[in-house]
Amino acid sequence: EHIPFAHTRYPEQEMRARSQEFYELLNKRRSVRFISSEQVPMEVIDNVIKAAGTAPSGAHTEPWTFVVVKDPDVKHKIREIIEEEEEINYTKRMGKRWVTDLKKLRTNWIKEYLDTAPVLILIFKQVHGFAANGKKKVHYYNEISVSIACGILLAALQVSRGTRETGETGTKTERSWKFRPSVQLGNAGLVTVTTTPLNCGPRLRVLLGRPSHEKLLMLLPVGYPSRDATVPDLKRKALDQIMVTV
Amino acid sequence: EHIPFAHTRYPEQEMRARSQEFYELLNKRRSVRFISSEQVPMEVIDNVIKAAGTAPSGAHTEPWTFVVVKDPDVKHKIREIIEEEEEINYTKRMGKRWVTDLKKLRTNWIKEYLDTAPVLILIFKQVHGFAANGKKKVHYYNEISVSIACGILLAALQVSRGTRETGETGTKTERSWKFRPSVQLGNAGLVTVTTTPLNCGPRLRVLLGRPSHEKLLMLLPVGYPSRDATVPDLKRKALDQIMVTV
Ligand SMILES: Cc1cc2nc3c(=O)[nH]c(=O)nc-3n(C[C@H](O)[C@H](O)[C@H](O)COP(=O)(O)O)c2cc1C
Ligand SMILES: Cc1cc2nc3c(=O)[nH]c(=O)nc-3n(C[C@H](O)[C@H](O)[C@H](O)COP(=O)(O)O)c2cc1C
Repeated sequence: EHIPFAHTRYPEQEMRARSQEFYELLNKRRSVRFISSEQVPMEVIDNVIKAAGTAPSGAHTEPWTFVVVKDPDVKHKIREIIEEEEEINYTKRMGKRWVTDLKKLRTNWIKEYLDTAPVLILIFKQVHGFAANGKKKVHYYNEISVSIACGILLAALQVSRGTRETGETGTKTERSWKFRPSVQLGNAGLVTVTTTPLNCGPRLRVLLGRPSHEKLLMLLPVGYPSRDATVPDLKRKALDQIMVTV
Repeated sequence: EHIPFAHTRYPEQEMRARSQEFYELLNKRRSVRFISSEQVPMEVIDNVIKAAGTAPSGAHTEPWTFVVVKDPDVKHKIREIIEEEEEINYTKRMGKRWVTDLKKLRTNWIKEYLDTAPVLILIFKQVHGFAANGKKKVHYYNEISVSIACGILLAALQVSRGTRETGETGTKTERSWKFRPSVQLGNAGLVTVTTTPLNCGPRLRVLLGRPSHEKLLMLLPVGYPSRDATVPDLKRKALDQIMVTV
């Protein structure tokens, strides 16, 4: 029942270089809210969800369901539900502070990307499961586990964009990755924006026919960025602002 | 304030190959509970935390603090606190079902890795922050955001182990990564186990001198696996058990 853990040693300088270049690649990730309607390779979507499915989970319960929506009518219904609820969030439900805090992101309740993105991934947490005898099975830390899986999915999506060996935006370590340089067509690797459609969970769950022990945790619209996509000019905290050594 | 999102197109077959090989690499991750006392390169620890810090967060609040514990005395005090609380969890607090559910993992309240692992990373969520005027700043979805960051950290740790071009355990796509084959010394890349020390948060927070608006979310012991590390023989769900297409 317990098996040896197969392992190999890697040279330290290799570990350093790889962790550095992976950080640099991830550091290019941005939440993109302008998504082109162009189709994306579905194998990549499968692979990033498979990657998410390798996440650890409390007591190995794997408490996640990934609903991949491609149907334009269903996407539009999702948009209608979210815009309806979000308008109430912005104008009535959530209060001035919430609206002010979101101002720098220039978000509002109009979510065009829900129609334009070729793929919406709705991530549900299973708040419990079922044992073989039909009894409820506890899903320890299901929200944390599914959020970890989502982090892994975002990393996988970022990796799947590939890297170029040359070009003004590539860093030196990035250029050392194995892939061939590719033509710049003014388009991009896949992007998404992590969203948590506030107060929309129950209606979206019913629309998608998911059972009541599944609760919507996140919605990721996935696609290529639209040609003139912009992002807020945010900075990230430096290492010494987020790390303490003891 | 909003800036163009720099992007480049990558060939679809490259996106497919990279997402596939990244999935295969992540699929080798296992939670390892037997950790060698050997020192690890601290730059790798810095880089995986920097990678975690690229995570998205609700309204860009970056609500995380990573406490890296290397001091053997502090590690031992952490072990004492956790074993004390965990013994109560196992014998009194949590009940028979919890104990049964954990049986297949063969975990108990003895956590030797808290002493042996050269590095413990304690991840705190900031349940709120402070604005420039000293007022409380809301941290929307702080637990989800920090869990996503943790997922990215785990992915970065897995990447930092490097890959070999040859050898019986490497897959074909894995062998295509750029790094040189390395000697098999019967040791390994870095490993961890995601843990949520139940009911230990407040005491660990005080021990580490963290402020009261920070709450312990996870503890990751990091190091090389010990020579004879074993793992539970778990299987992961297949794609069609976790994904639904609409
Ligand atoms: C939120 C969370 C909490 C966990 N808590 C513990 C824990 O306290 N102790 C432990 O030994 N493992 C813990 N685990 C690890 C799981 O048992 C492990 O991920 C699962 O059995 C699957 O094994 P794998 O990570 O090797 O794929 C936790 C995992 C998650 C995601
Ligand atoms: C849990 C969570 C919820 C979020 N919810 C929304 C959302 O509902 N709408 C939105 O436009 N962005 C949302 N975001 C994206 C954040 O605004 C974004 O991650 C942050 O501003 C940092 O920007 P970056 O992702 O480009 O680094 C969310 C992010 C997280 C982690």
